[in-house]
Amino acid sequence: MTAQSSRLTYDSTTPAVKDVDAYMDGLGRAARQAAVQMRRSPTAVKNAALSAMAEHLQSARHRVLEANQRDLSRGCDQGLDAALLDRLALNDARLEAMIEGLIQVAALPDPVGEIDGLRARPSGIQVGQMRVPLGVIGIIYESRPNVTMEAASLCLKSGNACILRGGSEASESNAAIATCIRQGLLDAGLPEAAVQVVATTDRAAVGRLISMPEYVDVIIPRGGKSLIERISREARVPVIKHLDGVCHVYLDASADPQKALAIAINAKTHRYGTCNTMETLLIDASLAEEMLPALAAAYAEHGVELRGCERTRAILGGIVSATEADWHTEYLAPVLAIRVVKGIEEAIAHIERYGSHHTDAIVTENYGLARRFLAEVDSSSVMVNASTRFADGFEYGLGAEIGISTDKLHARGPVGLEGLTTRKYVVLGDGQVRQ
Amino acid sequence: MTAQSSRLTYDSTTPAVKDVDAYMDGLGRAARQAAVQMRRSPTAVKNAALSAMAEHLQSARHRVLEANQRDLSRGCDQGLDAALLDRLALNDARLEAMIEGLIQVAALPDPVGEIDGLRARPSGIQVGQMRVPLGVIGIIYESRPNVTMEAASLCLKSGNACILRGGSEASESNAAIATCIRQGLLDAGLPEAAVQVVATTDRAAVGRLISMPEYVDVIIPRGGKSLIERISREARVPVIKHLDGVCHVYLDASADPQKALAIAINAKTHRYGTCNTMETLLIDASLAEEMLPALAAAYAEHGVELRGCERTRAILGGIVSATEADWHTEYLAPVLAIRVVKGIEEAIAHIERYGSHHTDAIVTENYGLARRFLAEVDSSSVMVNASTRFADGFEYGLGAEIGISTDKLHARGPVGLEGLTTRKYVVLGDGQVRQ
Repeated sequence: MTAQSSRLTYDSTTPAVKDVDAYMDGLGRAARQAAVQMRRSPTAVKNAALSAMAEHLQSARHRVLEANQRDLSRGCDQGLDAALLDRLALNDARLEAMIEGLIQVAALPDPVGEIDGLRARPSGIQVGQMRVPLGVIGIIYESRPNVTMEAASLCLKSGNACILRGGSEASESNAAIATCIRQGLLDAGLPEAAVQVVATTDRAAVGRLISMPEYVDVIIPRGGKSLIERISREARVPVIKHLDGVCHVYLDASADPQKALAIAINAKTHRYGTCNTMETLLIDASLAEEMLPALAAAYAEHGVELRGCERTRAILGGIVSATEADWHTEYLAPVLAIRVVKGIEEAIAHIERYGSHHTDAIVTENYGLARRFLAEVDSSSVMVNASTRFADGFEYGLGAEIGISTDKLHARGPVGLEGLTTRKYVVLGDGQVRQ
Repeated sequence: MTAQSSRLTYDSTTPAVKDVDAYMDGLGRAARQAAVQMRRSPTAVKNAALSAMAEHLQSARHRVLEANQRDLSRGCDQGLDAALLDRLALNDARLEAMIEGLIQVAALPDPVGEIDGLRARPSGIQVGQMRVPLGVIGIIYESRPNVTMEAASLCLKSGNACILRGGSEASESNAAIATCIRQGLLDAGLPEAAVQVVATTDRAAVGRLISMPEYVDVIIPRGGKSLIERISREARVPVIKHLDGVCHVYLDASADPQKALAIAINAKTHRYGTCNTMETLLIDASLAEEMLPALAAAYAEHGVELRGCERTRAILGGIVSATEADWHTEYLAPVLAIRVVKGIEEAIAHIERYGSHHTDAIVTENYGLARRFLAEVDSSSVMVNASTRFADGFEYGLGAEIGISTDKLHARGPVGLEGLTTRKYVVLGDGQVRQ
């Protein structure tokens, strides 16, 4: 689905699906029916299915790794690049992590049925909001086969039915994992169609999956930006998007230098390829002279290339000039753009103009500026004196994460089980009628 | 925009907007800028604007009514039907209600800035969710000019900028009201572009408004089903939908006959034209023989026409047979479909198959069945022993209502100020970095 995988034309394991639309409709219908049963499934039954899946995966270890080997050698033959092959590869440690993940999801509290804010109204009725599953979730992802199990477990625990469409390069691995999922569902007495893995690599299947509002309530695409953009543009059902991030750290004039240094280094260098990594550092003019040399020395130790605005270059010297394109770029690499700004107004304006509304942080000891940054920066996560790397479902205590949403409607920020649910109003009366 | 108004070709008051796309882009750009200022506007300033609007509307009474007279006489000339003219008409009482509405919205608590669930994490950071405006809201509606003021006030109070596109038949009334809105904004020092009323009746303006994701965050269509369906289909931004309702009341075997009678009568006869009115009554077989005659007598008093399933007709006699189409129909009229069902399973299956996921109620004294109905019926409001007519923002205590959403993502059920906001994560740290 990315530039890379679009070159793949493999379909040797594709079952004979002649009419893709009819096949997808069949999955949709079955999912819609399964969703009715999932909606009413008790927590214990859902947890039993998750535990059974873990056991089946444990016993099928050998088979899953063999299937993965076939995917890998086919991928090698087709000349997939090393990064893609690494994402595709399963091994004992990754299988162990999948099993551990199932056990962790089983241990999470069930969000379904929780009633918030039940209050009495003057009419005598009580009104509250009950958390309920979304219904049928379609998930479209790329090469990593462990996503199959992860997505299945989160959809199941949140009481949804799901249709999973993985990358064609992982088709044998995904089919082997799907078998474990199906066995787990059957063991617990849940419908097989609660989790369906699309068994054709025909790309028309994706087009159909995102165009069945009668069967699918929401689509979650996981993958490269171009895949997500295309799906958002073409989908006829709502899409929960998990976009990349152009994240900022702003070092205010009153920043504690120790905290500023620690956060600016951690936000950039803790991991380069994640969406919550800082890509642009904004530094207050009054601090620049004093702090930039220390920062540059620390970045040099990590091998981070710096690109600066004119004022940054005047202080540091010998670094590349940041172009307009740099302020827009998510490097996902040891590269950092640096801009000297005059105060919080200019910092917020820069973030508003160039940011991707993902995660932005201020380092400051000024109470008023902290409050202002929190209120005015329009991103899915806004932080004071903390590294942007904390924007993560586990760090936030969600217990799980299916991705990070930069959308404004529904889930925003790290999405855990709650983002896979919605709420409905419940009204408890005693015979009340409207006057 | 409905079958009715699509016949209108009036554009005598349309200002000379030659390039509609460029004009709408201009509104969008201005709204996006205004949204930045609205996001940071204190509650007191927003309330001051609302009060000032109320005063300006008070002093402009005469001018607004004159403009409305011009709309009405033009509508008469063009042969608009009586119902449409009634919705279009303003008078002293309706103006008073608009003024009162502004004062009430000013008195509501400001949802913006509220932080939920702030909790400490093992890393030492504190994480919570802050309620923030959506940004720019586009509202598309039909003949009622009072919607202009109502939509403006709710968007303003929730910290959003908005672009309002009313019906062309109300263009002079809307322009007069827009003047009061603009004056109120200026008095309070808020940007004029915080509320913009589209000043062209060219229908291409709607097409553009729903296709500017760079400027508009969400579209709320209010009007007939065909308008809403078309907008949902064509929009390139998220749509919060306010659809019609095929609402059910299920009288279970254990229902208290007094409550059953009161609720079944109120849900149907309290008002016929509202989306939360019951359209189909489901009655348990064991209750049918005893209760149907009493119900039929009460409905006869209200002049409600009954259409029944075979079992209903066998008991009542002389009523029309309900066809498959009846179970799908929102009558919005004194007509009721009745079906005898065998137990809750059949009742829920009927609602799942024919309902519109709006509002459904059970009347029962059985604790287990009440719990089951609440959990399993997948509608935006689910009720026990209360009339479906309670599904309403004011009855639920939201203090306001811009409509009722039957969507699953974001707002669901009656939508008040909270539905016009979203949440972002806020992280408060003290220099923490990710380990």
